Amino acid sequence: MFKNSISIAVAVLSFSFSVNAQKKVAVYLDNTKPLKERVEDALSKMTLEEKIAMIHAQSKFSSPGVPRLGIPENWMTDGPHGIRPETLWDEWDQANWTNDSCIAFPALTALSATWNKDMSLLYGQSIGEEARYRNKNVLLGPGVNIYRSPLNGRNFEYMGEDPFLTSKMVVPYIQGVQSNGVAACVKHFALNNQETNRHTVNVVVDDRALYEIYLPAFKAAVQEGNTWTIMGAYNRYKGQQACHNEYLLNNILKGEWAFEGTVIADWGGVNNTKEAIFNGMDLEFGTWTDGLSKGSKNAYDSYFLAQPYLNLIKSGEVGTKELDDKVRRVLRLSFLTTMAKDRPAGSFGTEEHALAGRKIAEEGIVLLQNNNNILPINLSKSKKIAVIGENAIKMMTVGGGSSSLKAKYEISPLDGLKNRIGKEAEVVYARGYVGDASTDYNGVNSGQNLAEKRSAEELRAEALKVAKDADIVIFVGGLNKSDYQDSEGHDRKSLGLPYNQDQLITDLVKVNKNLVFVNISGNAVAMPWIKQVPGIVQGWFLGTEGGNALASVLVGDVNPSGKLTFTFPAKLEDNGAHAIGEFPGSKDVNYSEGIFVGYRWAEMKKITPLFPFGHGLSYTTFEYGKVSADKTQMNASDNITFSVKVKNSGKRDGSEVVQLYISDLKSSLPRPIKELKGFEKVALKAGEEKTVTFTIDKKDLSFFDDKKHDWVAEPGDFEAIVGASSADIKSKVKFELK
Amino acid sequence: MFKNSISIAVAVLSFSFSVNAQKKVAVYLDNTKPLKERVEDALSKMTLEEKIAMIHAQSKFSSPGVPRLGIPENWMTDGPHGIRPETLWDEWDQANWTNDSCIAFPALTALSATWNKDMSLLYGQSIGEEARYRNKNVLLGPGVNIYRSPLNGRNFEYMGEDPFLTSKMVVPYIQGVQSNGVAACVKHFALNNQETNRHTVNVVVDDRALYEIYLPAFKAAVQEGNTWTIMGAYNRYKGQQACHNEYLLNNILKGEWAFEGTVIADWGGVNNTKEAIFNGMDLEFGTWTDGLSKGSKNAYDSYFLAQPYLNLIKSGEVGTKELDDKVRRVLRLSFLTTMAKDRPAGSFGTEEHALAGRKIAEEGIVLLQNNNNILPINLSKSKKIAVIGENAIKMMTVGGGSSSLKAKYEISPLDGLKNRIGKEAEVVYARGYVGDASTDYNGVNSGQNLAEKRSAEELRAEALKVAKDADIVIFVGGLNKSDYQDSEGHDRKSLGLPYNQDQLITDLVKVNKNLVFVNISGNAVAMPWIKQVPGIVQGWFLGTEGGNALASVLVGDVNPSGKLTFTFPAKLEDNGAHAIGEFPGSKDVNYSEGIFVGYRWAEMKKITPLFPFGHGLSYTTFEYGKVSADKTQMNASDNITFSVKVKNSGKRDGSEVVQLYISDLKSSLPRPIKELKGFEKVALKAGEEKTVTFTIDKKDLSFFDDKKHDWVAEPGDFEAIVGASSADIKSKVKFELK
Repeated sequence: MFKNSISIAVAVLSFSFSVNAQKKVAVYLDNTKPLKERVEDALSKMTLEEKIAMIHAQSKFSSPGVPRLGIPENWMTDGPHGIRPETLWDEWDQANWTNDSCIAFPALTALSATWNKDMSLLYGQSIGEEARYRNKNVLLGPGVNIYRSPLNGRNFEYMGEDPFLTSKMVVPYIQGVQSNGVAACVKHFALNNQETNRHTVNVVVDDRALYEIYLPAFKAAVQEGNTWTIMGAYNRYKGQQACHNEYLLNNILKGEWAFEGTVIADWGGVNNTKEAIFNGMDLEFGTWTDGLSKGSKNAYDSYFLAQPYLNLIKSGEVGTKELDDKVRRVLRLSFLTTMAKDRPAGSFGTEEHALAGRKIAEEGIVLLQNNNNILPINLSKSKKIAVIGENAIKMMTVGGGSSSLKAKYEISPLDGLKNRIGKEAEVVYARGYVGDASTDYNGVNSGQNLAEKRSAEELRAEALKVAKDADIVIFVGGLNKSDYQDSEGHDRKSLGLPYNQDQLITDLVKVNKNLVFVNISGNAVAMPWIKQVPGIVQGWFLGTEGGNALASVLVGDVNPSGKLTFTFPAKLEDNGAHAIGEFPGSKDVNYSEGIFVGYRWAEMKKITPLFPFGHGLSYTTFEYGKVSADKTQMNASDNITFSVKVKNSGKRDGSEVVQLYISDLKSSLPRPIKELKGFEKVALKAGEEKTVTFTIDKKDLSFFDDKKHDWVAEPGDFEAIVGASSADIKSKVKFELK
Repeated sequence: MFKNSISIAVAVLSFSFSVNAQKKVAVYLDNTKPLKERVEDALSKMTLEEKIAMIHAQSKFSSPGVPRLGIPENWMTDGPHGIRPETLWDEWDQANWTNDSCIAFPALTALSATWNKDMSLLYGQSIGEEARYRNKNVLLGPGVNIYRSPLNGRNFEYMGEDPFLTSKMVVPYIQGVQSNGVAACVKHFALNNQETNRHTVNVVVDDRALYEIYLPAFKAAVQEGNTWTIMGAYNRYKGQQACHNEYLLNNILKGEWAFEGTVIADWGGVNNTKEAIFNGMDLEFGTWTDGLSKGSKNAYDSYFLAQPYLNLIKSGEVGTKELDDKVRRVLRLSFLTTMAKDRPAGSFGTEEHALAGRKIAEEGIVLLQNNNNILPINLSKSKKIAVIGENAIKMMTVGGGSSSLKAKYEISPLDGLKNRIGKEAEVVYARGYVGDASTDYNGVNSGQNLAEKRSAEELRAEALKVAKDADIVIFVGGLNKSDYQDSEGHDRKSLGLPYNQDQLITDLVKVNKNLVFVNISGNAVAMPWIKQVPGIVQGWFLGTEGGNALASVLVGDVNPSGKLTFTFPAKLEDNGAHAIGEFPGSKDVNYSEGIFVGYRWAEMKKITPLFPFGHGLSYTTFEYGKVSADKTQMNASDNITFSVKVKNSGKRDGSEVVQLYISDLKSSLPRPIKELKGFEKVALKAGEEKTVTFTIDKKDLSFFDDKKHDWVAEPGDFEAIVGASSADIKSKVKFELK
């Protein structure tokens, strides 16, 4: 209510009703004016209360615009893998709309495993179109936190362990999303590498690891991807919440990187008004999101950046400089998204998006082991195909935390295989075990199994019987989206497969040696039976068309071309964080492995992993020529180009991810044995040869010097190493930085 | 789910991922292309199922777009007086959002009483801005059904009894709304003049009354206002539902008037698939809106224009010509609203809108009687002001059916008076009676009264005591938004005031003769005590700023200038429909009074009404000169202009609505004594004189000849009559149509 009715009365008397006159378009509404000018104009028209309202949520997923000025509300949506269904205003419960069943795209682990930037662009464009059609202007993704431990419950949402790969893959995703007038919200900034104690744990990490390992993807998102928003993280760093962290947000993000966009809190990531004011938090969300259900209509008014901030300003204790900066950033978001008149219309739940997801899935599936060429399934010989395992029928688009979706549909692996194989062979299914009966299942088999409540032993016996009679066994197991597996909120408890799958696999392969293990997961798992099982496929969480994509690879319609973006350690202790006993920490977690994360640790420690970073097989074979350089010496201002011939020496068309690693042969600070600095996915028809080139410059030779607080490339000898994985090195060439 | 997975597999293999290529903009997305071309292009790309989906609701207030093609959903909002709060997907219950508290504008009865087209434009612009900001692209209003009986429960939503006035007032409203890229939905087409048996009653009316009385406002809405949508009515006509009525929709609306827009069903107005297909219904809503709550997820699929239509097409029983026509019309709606890139951003709940509503309210309030100049309240003499009556504290923005609102705030008459009078005088309040304790109240007084549960006699005694001690008594009574009063779904039971108000007024005026009766209503009421009560004000339902607007008029800050847009009969039998015993009818209702509706009836029957059509007093006085014509004869292709001088002969500035009536002195068919054919609201400073001119042409002299089915202007003598109301004639001038 407008307080002063006397002033209103006066206003009415002088109110001009030139209703026929063409209204002059205000600067902030004039698309022909520069963005900054529009922002300043809008800011200048806003009241203090409107400014405060604009920097915190009004509901679970929305924040106010300026209704008086026609600046729209901001509507956020999880998440990285699809558009979350509508929720009630102030509850997590779904609103039961019927127009919000989305296409579920593959998890980002699958996307990164394509090692294909075009797939990342396609992904971003497609999910951005879905968000746009649903009138969401901020997509809460992608997630680019580094894979530090295989136990992190949210690894499946991220892009692996390598900062270079993640940096390259995140940029086209952002560009694709934002081409729709929808902001990407790159998360979680920063050092959010575990779920255990995620709201409280304080990460202790040296600057070198921070800049070399944990920040590059965010920097690329800002400086190359031009992301319009960044999401703060839950954890602490230097004792401050990441969501209002002077060092991360003020000094690095907005200082060194000159980020002009909006820092959005992770839901509930803000817990201190003054820190939020002064340490770079722009838009508070989810601090408590049960306001109305608790009977208060003003829960959002008590957010840290709401009434408490207003009170501090009114009392004169703090000024409005920081407020104006925050509001400018939120206004900028509006102008780039909801107020961009030329943004496209989007589209939703389309076959085109489903097929895009399928294409990404097919390129991301990794063939880890293929002894005796057990794959692709030879349908002229295999007339009875046993599909075993709960994950063959388990819905994976539901669960896992904020990335949970209401998918328009989801093809299970079993359905995908049945779809593809049709009458060419008989497909028989046995569940083998019941892992998590509490979550949703897809299809009739599951219902039958559950209804019958058969004992573990009965399930096992049935599986063995089915396997024994079959020509080939496809075991679809792995993890799922339940707590303590690939799911937000908790970390895994061990590297091993759950639900006694190891024993079942061991038993199955005894009755039928033609066994393929398909690992549905977003994390590495231990495989104690690896020598007995000829075929191993990393299947990820593949979304709506997952089962069809998997079937395409298993039968060979699609030649697998994915590569691992994180190391599969043979055992947990082979991972740096666990080797040093610093996961998950308690009050602090000390990243004292430093820069030696993933393959950097394994190589330094000379540990042979179960499967190395960059590993992935094909149904064809590739021959590499010797890598050459266009010069032997380069200057700091120069660049250098490496060339290598790659030939498809097999009989199938296929694609190979050619990887370039750089090794600093001598340096003042310890450096990894080698680091990824280039990759190229090259499609080769059978017999075809292409030359792949990589050009690098000084930054690719640099490390971050803590003491100088700067990137340093030391003159001296380097080696360019070309490989089919981090462990499958094809050739090397030396060069010198002058 | 996409059915044919084999074809998908093939599609994937040939799927072109030219993700970097600039996509060519499709014709339907190209704003530079003509509307019809865009519609045809979109239509050509749609599947049969997408077309069927587009012509019926998906939820209580939304219908699907084409998600695949980026054509947005349509979101409707009640209604004529403000933006309805968000509801749950498939229930009438509010969704408890906190961003949807609107400005409640005055009811359309108040708007029409301004007799000011600029106010109508301001209203449309303002409410259109509110709809736009809330992302509603169809505003379910305005309502222009003719006031046939004072018992119609929805009269308050309409614009009175005169087709000419309503036609002139509806056009700027539509233009204002649609200037925001929001469609008006003019309702209810047609002959929806009562609530009793509204879903079944069959209106029997001759063509002459249909064309002269009941259709002109709709025709003006289509041909002058260019309304983008029309809402069908619940009732029947010629035995067919108005929502799929061959005569009204095909022949008249889309035939004679060439309406290119969308016909939207009133909620639940469709009940026959074939009639809906063939008789002009384009977009079905509300047929049953409790699908989900009844446990079915497919309730909307069983709408008459959903699966049943699809089945008829698939069986070959009906073709797709009608479907394509409907879809074209719905697509056109999208292109004009959600897909219009240049539409403004809107604004919501603003002070500007509140003040616009206040301005309209102030211009719409009608001073009906002012004996001894009891008004304006003389604050230098009246030091104790008694406010009595439930409506002084009763919330009127809630209730009344589909026009019910969640207002940002609502100023009650009591609060408005207190706001204005402040410390200038003492304001004391007594409720006097309890009418409807079941609805919401505004303010503390109400709560106290209810809590005390005092008897009617105690309330009456208190009121009399308060009145006796006061210098002036403002009795704020009338009707309210409960069932059987001014409310959708039921008609009133009698013309009299409810809750024994007549007795209380009679008693009050005995203890204090300085009594002003403020009638809060959208309908005429009987006033058996009219000779005893010196001041009578028609207060309408005035919305958010209602109490302030009323106070402004009562104290004289604003000089009243509203005029009645319907006749107040002294008794129910003085109204045509009731005189002939044809209200509400039963299976049929026979409008056998024909064209003699409102003042046309009263004048023909020489009945003196309580207050006549066009009546309204001012705190100043106006002197009229003699009307003159610019010629004595006019041809059929000619026009003629009348001029009259009007002078403010009093001491206050004020505005006068100068009215022009035409009388056909001799005609082959009976005609009304006179009919309104011009009006002009002229603002005059004290002492100021202006000349008001009216130009009319042949159409203003015409009647509708049933037999010729055409408008006819018969040569001969006519009279132009200038008046301050239909009964207060100032002068006349004769002219001849050659």
